Amino acid sequence: MYATVMHGPGDVRYEQVSDPRIEKPTDAIIKLSATCICGSDLWPYRGLSERNGPAHMGHEYCGVVVEVGSEVKTVKPGQFVVGSFCLSDNTCPHCAFGFHSSCQQGEFMTGAQAPYARVPLADGTLVATVEMPDADVIPHMLAVSDVLGTGWYAADAAQVRKGGTVVVVGDGAVGLMGVLAASQMGAERIIAMSRHATRQQLAREFGATDIVAERGADGIARIMDLTDGVGAESVLECVGMGESMDQAMGVCRPGGTIGYVGVPHGVSFDGQKLFFSQRRMLGGPAPVRRFLPDLMDRVLKGAIRPGKVFDLVLPIAQVAEGYRAMDERRAIKTLLRVDE
Amino acid sequence: MYATVMHGPGDVRYEQVSDPRIEKPTDAIIKLSATCICGSDLWPYRGLSERNGPAHMGHEYCGVVVEVGSEVKTVKPGQFVVGSFCLSDNTCPHCAFGFHSSCQQGEFMTGAQAPYARVPLADGTLVATVEMPDADVIPHMLAVSDVLGTGWYAADAAQVRKGGTVVVVGDGAVGLMGVLAASQMGAERIIAMSRHATRQQLAREFGATDIVAERGADGIARIMDLTDGVGAESVLECVGMGESMDQAMGVCRPGGTIGYVGVPHGVSFDGQKLFFSQRRMLGGPAPVRRFLPDLMDRVLKGAIRPGKVFDLVLPIAQVAEGYRAMDERRAIKTLLRVDE
Repeated sequence: MYATVMHGPGDVRYEQVSDPRIEKPTDAIIKLSATCICGSDLWPYRGLSERNGPAHMGHEYCGVVVEVGSEVKTVKPGQFVVGSFCLSDNTCPHCAFGFHSSCQQGEFMTGAQAPYARVPLADGTLVATVEMPDADVIPHMLAVSDVLGTGWYAADAAQVRKGGTVVVVGDGAVGLMGVLAASQMGAERIIAMSRHATRQQLAREFGATDIVAERGADGIARIMDLTDGVGAESVLECVGMGESMDQAMGVCRPGGTIGYVGVPHGVSFDGQKLFFSQRRMLGGPAPVRRFLPDLMDRVLKGAIRPGKVFDLVLPIAQVAEGYRAMDERRAIKTLLRVDE
Repeated sequence: MYATVMHGPGDVRYEQVSDPRIEKPTDAIIKLSATCICGSDLWPYRGLSERNGPAHMGHEYCGVVVEVGSEVKTVKPGQFVVGSFCLSDNTCPHCAFGFHSSCQQGEFMTGAQAPYARVPLADGTLVATVEMPDADVIPHMLAVSDVLGTGWYAADAAQVRKGGTVVVVGDGAVGLMGVLAASQMGAERIIAMSRHATRQQLAREFGATDIVAERGADGIARIMDLTDGVGAESVLECVGMGESMDQAMGVCRPGGTIGYVGVPHGVSFDGQKLFFSQRRMLGGPAPVRRFLPDLMDRVLKGAIRPGKVFDLVLPIAQVAEGYRAMDERRAIKTLLRVDE
């Protein structure tokens, strides 16, 4: 088959590769219903994270099971499934504690920007629907796999509560999903930090009550104004840069919580400063598997439409253009059609 | 009067100073029933934190109100009171949120290693008992003021829960109080890290179920053994050094929480490492005021005897020996009698 391979920074090709096959008895092979490009794919694309040789890209996926290994028990060919970018057995103590992204057997998904993909640990990783969803539901199901699951975790980690005040730092796809999550969790006030009109609009659609376009000290001052000098009890850091973390710290109230889901690049914390600022923090790769059944259910009920975050749809053969559009911020998030 | 003044590292003197007096209408003057030396007093004593000139030492206190400013309403002369080392108005949004140590008017107590002391923000800071407590209760009440309140906050910040597994890093007075707090909160397993026989014994008295004497990689391996390779869901970091924080990180399970109350000295965190380790963290100066009524109640009912942490009692005139004994680890914590 043809699939997406990154050969180096800025060099993404749709090229011939071996077909995926069952390698372990716990594997499944799925036919993708759709796939997409993640903000985290831009780190290696921009040369900002290390790579060893060509990499099979893609870790967000939903589709139909076509083959399973001999030990797979909970999913079977013909079922529609969604999985997380963190592969997990769903039975180890860390999974049982809700932290599937630290699964004792865990690994990261790869190779999903393709028509077919191998999913290891299929029993623990994949969640099947009862019926085959309609085509118009696919983008929303795909969003659940990573971008919504990650935004949801940011809100969960930030201890968003009903009636609470929330700030979302970052207006990328994850930040926008963080807004949606905070809204679903019943936050009364959701302040989205965004300078881009189209993203501001989407943030409002997802539930933002206030938009702050300023950044840095001005952004902090604006949010302090909006919160009577107190700050927010829950802050979602959805970028991963030093500036965005400083922003998150600056708008969080003492005793408030920062949920950070942008992989930190060049971020460090001084222990004593962190101590006296008295911010609670939890970050990490999102344990999306914990949230999958609930989020898929919300999609199927029509309660949420997270797939609206895809503002560019391309045939997968044009994946290179999909990366370019996101890199140049012409697109928030690119969905790749695999329907040929 | 005579009081305790630190002139520089290693140089603590009991010398003549001005009597404390009402400086603001919100002040109270108390006659100390007893006072003590804090582990944090050892930082400047050891030359490890900056000082500008001679400092009036002491921030742990209980005693009898002798005078109040014109605006003080909730305490009156003749009442026995306990306060926190963090002075707070108990009405600002941060106090209302339970984080009195970040009070908008907040300041730190000083000058309590003396027969009399001025307590600013008396209404918000001091909690009075209904009756004058017996003399044998005084050490326990004094412990509530800081060392127990801080250990309690460590356990609260670490989200200790009934039936949970807890590791306490640090066998100083605060660590021992962390053990007591975890026990009171219903933790099933409390692993205290300690190499000293007398402290191990006290930790057991306060509720430790296991003692680990090893440190560093060996200590982590031992605790991993004890927890079936999982780690603890709640870790109390009660030291504030790089090694102790590494220890805390190393024994905490993914998704678990570290409550850190030792003021960090030379501690920093790499953002990406923290992210992938997926530890929840909350530290800071303890908002003891939040816990005071409950803790004083537990003392008065005889449910807890935190004053057992004082293993050296000296007349306040011998305060310099009290510092030396703690510095040389001959004493866990020194109570200073002020009854002349």
